[in-house]
Amino acid sequence: MRVWWSLWGFLGVGVAVVCEAALGSYPRLRSASRPDPASASFSRSYRTCYFDQKIDHFGFAEDGKFKQRFLIADQHWRPGDGAILFYTGNEGDITWFANNTGLMWNVAEELGALLIFAEHRYYGESLPFGNKSFDDARYLNYLTSEQALADFAVLVRHLKKTVPGAQDTPAIAIGGSYGGMLAAWFRMKYPHVVVGALAASAPIWQFADLVPCSTFYNIVTQDFRKSGNCCADSIRNSWAAIDRLASTAEGTRWMSCTFRLCSPLKTAQDVANFKGWLSETWVNLAMVDYPYQANFLQPLPAWPIQVVCKFLQRPKLPDKALLKNVFQAVNVYYNYSGNTSCFSLSQTATQSLGMQGWYYQACTEMVMPMCADGVNDMFEPQQWDFQSYSDDCYKAWGVRPRPSWIPTSYGGRNISSHSNILFSNGGLDPWSGGGVTRNITNSLVAVVIPEGAHHLDLRSNSPYDPNSVLQARLLEVHFMKLWMKKDEEYRRRK
Amino acid sequence: MRVWWSLWGFLGVGVAVVCEAALGSYPRLRSASRPDPASASFSRSYRTCYFDQKIDHFGFAEDGKFKQRFLIADQHWRPGDGAILFYTGNEGDITWFANNTGLMWNVAEELGALLIFAEHRYYGESLPFGNKSFDDARYLNYLTSEQALADFAVLVRHLKKTVPGAQDTPAIAIGGSYGGMLAAWFRMKYPHVVVGALAASAPIWQFADLVPCSTFYNIVTQDFRKSGNCCADSIRNSWAAIDRLASTAEGTRWMSCTFRLCSPLKTAQDVANFKGWLSETWVNLAMVDYPYQANFLQPLPAWPIQVVCKFLQRPKLPDKALLKNVFQAVNVYYNYSGNTSCFSLSQTATQSLGMQGWYYQACTEMVMPMCADGVNDMFEPQQWDFQSYSDDCYKAWGVRPRPSWIPTSYGGRNISSHSNILFSNGGLDPWSGGGVTRNITNSLVAVVIPEGAHHLDLRSNSPYDPNSVLQARLLEVHFMKLWMKKDEEYRRRK
Repeated sequence: MRVWWSLWGFLGVGVAVVCEAALGSYPRLRSASRPDPASASFSRSYRTCYFDQKIDHFGFAEDGKFKQRFLIADQHWRPGDGAILFYTGNEGDITWFANNTGLMWNVAEELGALLIFAEHRYYGESLPFGNKSFDDARYLNYLTSEQALADFAVLVRHLKKTVPGAQDTPAIAIGGSYGGMLAAWFRMKYPHVVVGALAASAPIWQFADLVPCSTFYNIVTQDFRKSGNCCADSIRNSWAAIDRLASTAEGTRWMSCTFRLCSPLKTAQDVANFKGWLSETWVNLAMVDYPYQANFLQPLPAWPIQVVCKFLQRPKLPDKALLKNVFQAVNVYYNYSGNTSCFSLSQTATQSLGMQGWYYQACTEMVMPMCADGVNDMFEPQQWDFQSYSDDCYKAWGVRPRPSWIPTSYGGRNISSHSNILFSNGGLDPWSGGGVTRNITNSLVAVVIPEGAHHLDLRSNSPYDPNSVLQARLLEVHFMKLWMKKDEEYRRRK
Repeated sequence: MRVWWSLWGFLGVGVAVVCEAALGSYPRLRSASRPDPASASFSRSYRTCYFDQKIDHFGFAEDGKFKQRFLIADQHWRPGDGAILFYTGNEGDITWFANNTGLMWNVAEELGALLIFAEHRYYGESLPFGNKSFDDARYLNYLTSEQALADFAVLVRHLKKTVPGAQDTPAIAIGGSYGGMLAAWFRMKYPHVVVGALAASAPIWQFADLVPCSTFYNIVTQDFRKSGNCCADSIRNSWAAIDRLASTAEGTRWMSCTFRLCSPLKTAQDVANFKGWLSETWVNLAMVDYPYQANFLQPLPAWPIQVVCKFLQRPKLPDKALLKNVFQAVNVYYNYSGNTSCFSLSQTATQSLGMQGWYYQACTEMVMPMCADGVNDMFEPQQWDFQSYSDDCYKAWGVRPRPSWIPTSYGGRNISSHSNILFSNGGLDPWSGGGVTRNITNSLVAVVIPEGAHHLDLRSNSPYDPNSVLQARLLEVHFMKLWMKKDEEYRRRK
């Protein structure tokens, strides 16, 4: 059950951009029209820049710098009137997030916005120690959410100082998933830098004992229950079927062959990995259960769980028949294009998934307890075992996680004294279980999109969007305008 | 002009306390009645404890711990009704602050308060690497305000979890000077840990270009102008007199002798240090210009600047006559007890001044620009020269200061989205120039005590207190009660 590290790796395929680094100075934009992978009719252009960041904001012995990449688009910017929309990059290549955050492009004109997409340190091209960045715990020592937020704060302040006309422009943080947590935390810790934050599908409470550890898998299971008769039951029954087949060499060979595995199963650990790979597949499907054909983690049809569940209507079939159906289901996720010759257990999302950074973060700050009981959910029973989790982390990185640090640093459930954060959640998204789904105050507002999966609201408008996501986006724009207006009033009063 | 590091060192004489360390568990209090050095009629007792803190809250490669000292007093605590008053320790021995923060002892009964005085890392006994803590920049790397605030947050949460009945007790941060900045920043960064903060004489704006660099010395000069005829003029004229005398060997010898210097002046650098020592003396007098006899930096009479100024009424005397008077003035500050045989230039405040830590902090985060022009103030003209400041720091510690980090981290003048902070300032205190002296919102409130020097309001009640400080203390208690009440209402609504 490796959910804690690989679900979050949304690294995208590289998109060629014009790289015009002019460090320390404001880069003028040159349009480089590129097709939007999601909607070919929508043209976007940005400039790629690099900013000299301190490797360590919180200590002075390490005084080195690294080049943080960020993307900038000012086609619709109205200085003196508009806003800076600042994407708080998460665990991946920033171009991928720029391409999957259509909302920012869609609202740019209405808000007169300067768009900035800032890459998170240790991801994409923003590697503090180049190729050595992941070599050991010493190099990895500066990979924390606090350092990333400090990067963002320094960068926003630099842009406001150096971009002509930007000095009094209010900045708004926007992010999804871990990036959504960063957006919320950015507003909490640096309210003088951003006037508000849109935190989409941000499970800021998926830590310590803030929500039950069972929540996440329960939501995945509900998605499958709702999407087809006996679908969840079929998956629940598959685990024992796998175990029975794995008890003989013939059965193991049969599974390797039937599931077209690139490397055949051999050891008990291989079989465990195989089950982990299946679990992740179901989880990923729940995250990307979008109402239209899309390519986020994988190219997929509209409402992919419904498509998958068509193969999973008969939970009581004999083992091999049941698993043949499971293969058909999995084949939808991994082979929608029809070009995949074999399946690799180490790959559950896009080819260029950058797993190392998130694995390290999960082993330090980002400890999200999860468990399954196989009764209320369709997964193999698994308790949350912090000690073994910590031991695995120590083996992998030589560090031990600190599960109480995130609630200590960012407040856990007690966040009511903050302001101007909009938390959006998809009802289908397993991460909504750890999200803020109810209003806390009149400026800490939650919106739930019942038909939405993982930050559907951040994606480009689509004719297939359910009404709930359109409403959510209207609300999001409403609040952004409200924060801008309040900021203007405040500046006028001063 | 070494103001940036030595003005803040309020290390006190050690007071014998019963040390009953019970790590990780709640220590039961044993009364150890001790006389209050300021007011013998008031008896105080506390227990000394030590808490295991992470050396590095913001990285995982260094996983070591150190013992943070804190003092606890629960004589007046009413669990379920009262508050935790938490002193955010600054650059010195925490027992000294406990003894010089009479306010907390005075209000404990009224607020049903559990008193905690937490020592700042790298001061007093709370040394992360023991005797090696100051050896080099690697050991010093964890001496930052952010690490200190994280210590406080972890400690408060630990106490609330482990002290029976404290779970729902609201904590209020209280501090003076750098400790006042920490109290304010604690509320800003960890509003889920403390419901409010009293930031006394906290110059949170004495950074970067937030206030003119001349402010500080202007206020010192005003204090001397107000306290005696021609007093400031006499001091202003003394610099040139020193220079003229220093131009001959005889004159230099005469000054060493007249000022009873332990080490006679020899080089030009010695003469510069001599002038720096005099400047610091005038500055320190402005900080401790209290209305009654007190022993804070030094044992002193009531309104010590008035006493000093009696010797400084004739600014146009010949050089030696003028400097003889300056000596008489200085003698008030360094020799009020009459027992000092010679004066050391390296010592401007209490014997046990812990200068190293603050010197390092001034060379990293705590860069407070100061300048003098000798016209509007009584000091030798000196520009703010960041480059030479930085070079000196590099020579001393191998690190360079980052003057824009504090405003980036803590918001500079843009702090209006925070709440529940009361900023108190003394009108006589040179640090009030960098303080918040006007209300920002109805929950970011400023109070000025015109007749107050450096955090007079934090001291014990005295019959000689001016009315303004009594009013300020009433306001402080009013706001603490308000924060407690609001917190109770919030908890009841939940």
